[in-house]
Amino acid sequence: MRIIDKEMIKTLVWDGETLDDLQLKGIHLIQKKDAFRFGVDAVLLANFATVRKGNEVIDLCTGTGIIPFIIAGKTEARRVTGIEIQREMVEMANRSTQLNMLEDRITFIEEDLKNLKIMKSIPKADVVTVNPPYKLNQSGILNPNDKTAIARHEVLCNLEDVIIASRILLKDNGRLYMVHRPERLADILCLMRKHKIEPKRIRMVHPNTKKAPNIILVEGQRDGGQFLKLEPPLYVYNDEGGYSDEINRIYGRE
Amino acid sequence: MRIIDKEMIKTLVWDGETLDDLQLKGIHLIQKKDAFRFGVDAVLLANFATVRKGNEVIDLCTGTGIIPFIIAGKTEARRVTGIEIQREMVEMANRSTQLNMLEDRITFIEEDLKNLKIMKSIPKADVVTVNPPYKLNQSGILNPNDKTAIARHEVLCNLEDVIIASRILLKDNGRLYMVHRPERLADILCLMRKHKIEPKRIRMVHPNTKKAPNIILVEGQRDGGQFLKLEPPLYVYNDEGGYSDEINRIYGRE
Repeated sequence: MRIIDKEMIKTLVWDGETLDDLQLKGIHLIQKKDAFRFGVDAVLLANFATVRKGNEVIDLCTGTGIIPFIIAGKTEARRVTGIEIQREMVEMANRSTQLNMLEDRITFIEEDLKNLKIMKSIPKADVVTVNPPYKLNQSGILNPNDKTAIARHEVLCNLEDVIIASRILLKDNGRLYMVHRPERLADILCLMRKHKIEPKRIRMVHPNTKKAPNIILVEGQRDGGQFLKLEPPLYVYNDEGGYSDEINRIYGRE
Repeated sequence: MRIIDKEMIKTLVWDGETLDDLQLKGIHLIQKKDAFRFGVDAVLLANFATVRKGNEVIDLCTGTGIIPFIIAGKTEARRVTGIEIQREMVEMANRSTQLNMLEDRITFIEEDLKNLKIMKSIPKADVVTVNPPYKLNQSGILNPNDKTAIARHEVLCNLEDVIIASRILLKDNGRLYMVHRPERLADILCLMRKHKIEPKRIRMVHPNTKKAPNIILVEGQRDGGQFLKLEPPLYVYNDEGGYSDEINRIYGRE
């Protein structure tokens, strides 16, 4: 169990921020009180990804760094590198790394994933994870300085940008794990194929057994052979309205 | 209620064939005792398709004609035309049409859907349905005279052939309904997009709430706009191991 020093908290957690216990080996995450707070999507993605001992992992659109911290806590990944375009988020994620004394396994890079020259210069990964902005920037009226809009809408990068960067960042046969919305399923599968990341595994997440899925988890493999497996659904709530056993297990509430 | 004449049965149902009650307005279907018997897939597809009053419907790979007979019974389609390459099946389906006295609403055509010149000569449809051969003919060793292999494997036509024919047969904004296996989901969505039939709606069919889907139902629209809706799952069995209420309703067992 990690013990976090009170003096460190004073120095590293700033006004308007909270320190949240991930219920995972004592790891804590710094988040803004009012923005950029991680959701169930990130937690499900970090648990969906298969990360083996010694793997190099890159998390795109990493935000607060929630996915690198969960993967570092749950797996024997050698290193997890988060890439994020927003400076403020990278600074916050770096402070979470210091606080958890995980500098030897977690690194954050402030970079635009559309900068392919830089992407090509980063050492290749066994696994890439990404919880990208979900919504099409169809209107084009979104403010490019709105930090919440950047995290939610395809303002600074779109789905194809994410997949192009992933192909560059992955080793041969390396695996991409993405969480997204069901209405983008055709876009995801077709863009993955276009860039030779073959869809291999899909898991649908439903609020309960009666409802349509509202989250999808997709695994693709760089230059993988064609065979797609659909997994049993994940239900967030059980028939009684409480969290399902699987969700409790994922959140460490067992 | 339709009453089927016993003399007609003697003439129209041959040795080695059965006459099956579809539990739908007295409609009966002739099938071979040992081959080409319709499955749950065809029934689910016929119920998934939205067919409006006066619609022209074409069913590709129609086999025994099960889908045209269900659609003729359940909807106010003006006409349902089944296209099938195997002469023996077309003859059998034609006898089912006579037996049910549905000649004014159901027609079968013996034709290869890869014959695009013929496809272009057929009047356009509001709705195309298809329960195509599911399995890739990867080995290439299948006997092209094996009638069961033709129905199950992509021996005489593949998924792309089916989608190309559908695009030709559909009116502007007409809808394609397909039943298939989940492992072909990426193929289906990407080939539909390639041929400008936009995936609009997907329903997954699971044996029960705990299991992965084993059947998928997909609706596409010719030149449709991009928005994909995933529907609540359909479970074949309930938690007690009996048929689910929805399956009983579909099979007219209420």
